[in-house]
Amino acid sequence: MSKDVVITDNWLDSVAFDDQGLVTVVAQDYLSKRVLMVAWMNRQALEITAKTRFATYFSRSRNKLWHKGEESGNQQKVHDIRLDCDGDVIVLLVEQVGGIACHTGRESCFYYALETNAQGQPAWVAQDPVLKDPAEMYRPSK
Amino acid sequence: MSKDVVITDNWLDSVAFDDQGLVTVVAQDYLSKRVLMVAWMNRQALEITAKTRFATYFSRSRNKLWHKGEESGNQQKVHDIRLDCDGDVIVLLVEQVGGIACHTGRESCFYYALETNAQGQPAWVAQDPVLKDPAEMYRPSK
Repeated sequence: MSKDVVITDNWLDSVAFDDQGLVTVVAQDYLSKRVLMVAWMNRQALEITAKTRFATYFSRSRNKLWHKGEESGNQQKVHDIRLDCDGDVIVLLVEQVGGIACHTGRESCFYYALETNAQGQPAWVAQDPVLKDPAEMYRPSK
Repeated sequence: MSKDVVITDNWLDSVAFDDQGLVTVVAQDYLSKRVLMVAWMNRQALEITAKTRFATYFSRSRNKLWHKGEESGNQQKVHDIRLDCDGDVIVLLVEQVGGIACHTGRESCFYYALETNAQGQPAWVAQDPVLKDPAEMYRPSK
């Protein structure tokens, strides 16, 4: 079990960023409570998110701030920000603009369910409809 | 954006464990959909969880398998296992035995909410009642 979070004068100092300066963030629909995606934030992304009330993450693959929806338009309006007991995970309750959080055009990134196949073995099976063609979501820059 | 998951014959091979052999796991109440906790699993923990239908994690601080509830009795009965688009995060829909997921005796580990204090500054404020004294949850081994 990790050490319990210490609540400090500066709220950002209570967050236990890892050795890469990141914290895990779960984005959950504020009404249905469905988990839409999990991503990461650095200190700056978290500060921007709290100020603007729109989710900004840190992209580990692109190594830069990622204003969610900057390309697709699918922004996340933040209703609530929660921190866990040891300060190393954040939950955002968000209103998902456009109803699509996943780059595949689905509502949620968690569309594979572990089911039992015809051979009686566990198998990941894709659920959930594609609501929008990803090719339409990410138009090339002009 | 990370690479999309490849669905393989062995379901465990589709999971993108990190360089420490771990995958992030979000445990969510199967009825209320509240996020209860976030923890980590290695391949063995995930296999045990799928077979037994009770959550087993990998404790990074103790560096060993952690059968959730082995000390506190607060096991998590697994109703659904979901994987995300790039295969590096799992969501468990669980029935939380005893209604307490957090070692502080609360339902959920996410009991700090970011609010605005009297000085107009953001501040983490603890919410949610303590349902059970942690001293009663973790009795010393005999």
